[in-house]
Amino acid sequence: MGFILAIHGGAGTIRRATMTPELESGYHAGLCAALKAGHAVLAAGGPALDATIAAVMAMEDNPLFNAGRGAVYTSAGKLEMDAAVMEGRERRAGAVAGICGPRNPVLAARAVMEHSDHELLGGAGAMAFLNTQDIVFEAPEYFATERRWKALQTELERRRMGAMTEADDSTRHGTVGAVACDAQGNLAASTSTGGMTGKLPGRVGDSPQIGSGTFADNGSCAVSCTGVGELFVRYCAAHEISARMRFLGEGLEAAADKVVTDLAPVGGNGGLVAVDAAGTVAMPFNCAGMYRGRIGEDGVAWTAIYREELRADRG
Amino acid sequence: MGFILAIHGGAGTIRRATMTPELESGYHAGLCAALKAGHAVLAAGGPALDATIAAVMAMEDNPLFNAGRGAVYTSAGKLEMDAAVMEGRERRAGAVAGICGPRNPVLAARAVMEHSDHELLGGAGAMAFLNTQDIVFEAPEYFATERRWKALQTELERRRMGAMTEADDSTRHGTVGAVACDAQGNLAASTSTGGMTGKLPGRVGDSPQIGSGTFADNGSCAVSCTGVGELFVRYCAAHEISARMRFLGEGLEAAADKVVTDLAPVGGNGGLVAVDAAGTVAMPFNCAGMYRGRIGEDGVAWTAIYREELRADRG
Repeated sequence: MGFILAIHGGAGTIRRATMTPELESGYHAGLCAALKAGHAVLAAGGPALDATIAAVMAMEDNPLFNAGRGAVYTSAGKLEMDAAVMEGRERRAGAVAGICGPRNPVLAARAVMEHSDHELLGGAGAMAFLNTQDIVFEAPEYFATERRWKALQTELERRRMGAMTEADDSTRHGTVGAVACDAQGNLAASTSTGGMTGKLPGRVGDSPQIGSGTFADNGSCAVSCTGVGELFVRYCAAHEISARMRFLGEGLEAAADKVVTDLAPVGGNGGLVAVDAAGTVAMPFNCAGMYRGRIGEDGVAWTAIYREELRADRG
Repeated sequence: MGFILAIHGGAGTIRRATMTPELESGYHAGLCAALKAGHAVLAAGGPALDATIAAVMAMEDNPLFNAGRGAVYTSAGKLEMDAAVMEGRERRAGAVAGICGPRNPVLAARAVMEHSDHELLGGAGAMAFLNTQDIVFEAPEYFATERRWKALQTELERRRMGAMTEADDSTRHGTVGAVACDAQGNLAASTSTGGMTGKLPGRVGDSPQIGSGTFADNGSCAVSCTGVGELFVRYCAAHEISARMRFLGEGLEAAADKVVTDLAPVGGNGGLVAVDAAGTVAMPFNCAGMYRGRIGEDGVAWTAIYREELRADRG
């Protein structure tokens, strides 16, 4: 049986006007690197969970994406990261919310799943637990980027003026995520994010909430979402796709399209990546663009940003 | 059209051996008081959301129940409370995790829904927001009870001995919750909990996670769960009931029974209360007992603890 991995690096109003060729190339290169990191795991016979974590780590390490290094700032000028992992065979899951310290928040989520009796740990309590775990920590400066700091100042100024946002909102509420089906037919999903620029301290989005931003079940699908998290939570977006497949007999693409389409009119701008156990991939979004990509057994990385065809990596 | 309210005050291995007639009467009286608080709202034409909040507040104020006053302790000997509210017309929701201060955590959840741009706030950030809200705070001593402190010592000793638990586990992971259908056919759910005795600091259970422990949608049902939260999260218990009703055409009771029954073999001991817009109530549990009750237009409070018929309040 084959294997497949799909990823996203955030969705929203990605404005071509504010995009340079260099930045665009950087995003494609970052997506390719993440796809290849996940592919290496799957090609070696590794599990879907490990592949999604490897892909997410690559994006967490890349300051272009809003997760790990390069995460966005809260209204208080701090970094608070959320992440989740879920594997579809036993439906084990782990998640963290409101942490800053672990270089790779997705590994913190995995530690919660594997080494605690709990599923979600947040804030100071999460940090106390993570300090006992074998994961790499970084000082706050590691995560800090000038670009995100400026984005916070712009957002705070916008609020002072009471103005509508004109910014590229994929930079305000980006998220990274990966879903995979491995050679054994096991599914997994991982998601990681800095949240929304200017979010209230303590805000927990959809990413670490199982069934909302992250979900995996071998019997239906694995899903990782990105967008206006509050709406993805209220509509249990990821689990709704699984339910449509299981109970209505819809295919992955039809179910994913329906959920993403229905989120738009209620303000749930965003998108998601999803896979099923047959290796089908869906990458719907209801906004201008979504940083996204997929890679199969042949190792060719396909990536896209806007509403356009995926392009093969020529690197 | 009629109205209906159903509540729970926790589920688990409620042992008759450790129950006294006085304690049993206390639970029935506490459930009755909560039902009547909710009924007063509905009888005055108030919305389902307000009724569920009133019922939950009555149980938060009652130290017999694991929420608000009488919440259980973390492994660090602190109190960290979670709560959520959701209304089914617009699917608005608010939740808090890991807070200690607001006398009624369910009002904190409502404040997040009504006065923030977010859906879930946790820990120190949540407290900073709540301090700006018009809600009543109490000192830590208000919430503290000797009974819960002893339960923590027993649990910590059990862990030191590596023994299996013999304790009444409804006292280890109780939760309170309410669901209602008001005269306009609007549904709502509210849930509040201290979590599990001896939980890791920072642990977030199913109660504040929409779709897991709390859910409301006028088109299907309102649900509030209690039990081993980690499993209710991995199986998105509350939202799964809604999905079965919407996509399989199952009735409320069949859908709720199925979800609760399927949770048992994977370790998801517990139960839930649910209502639909026709006024149907379901109160399934897969363990020895669940503190529960219901009240309709006639104002007669029906309550039960074990696997037994509901009894009418003779108070």
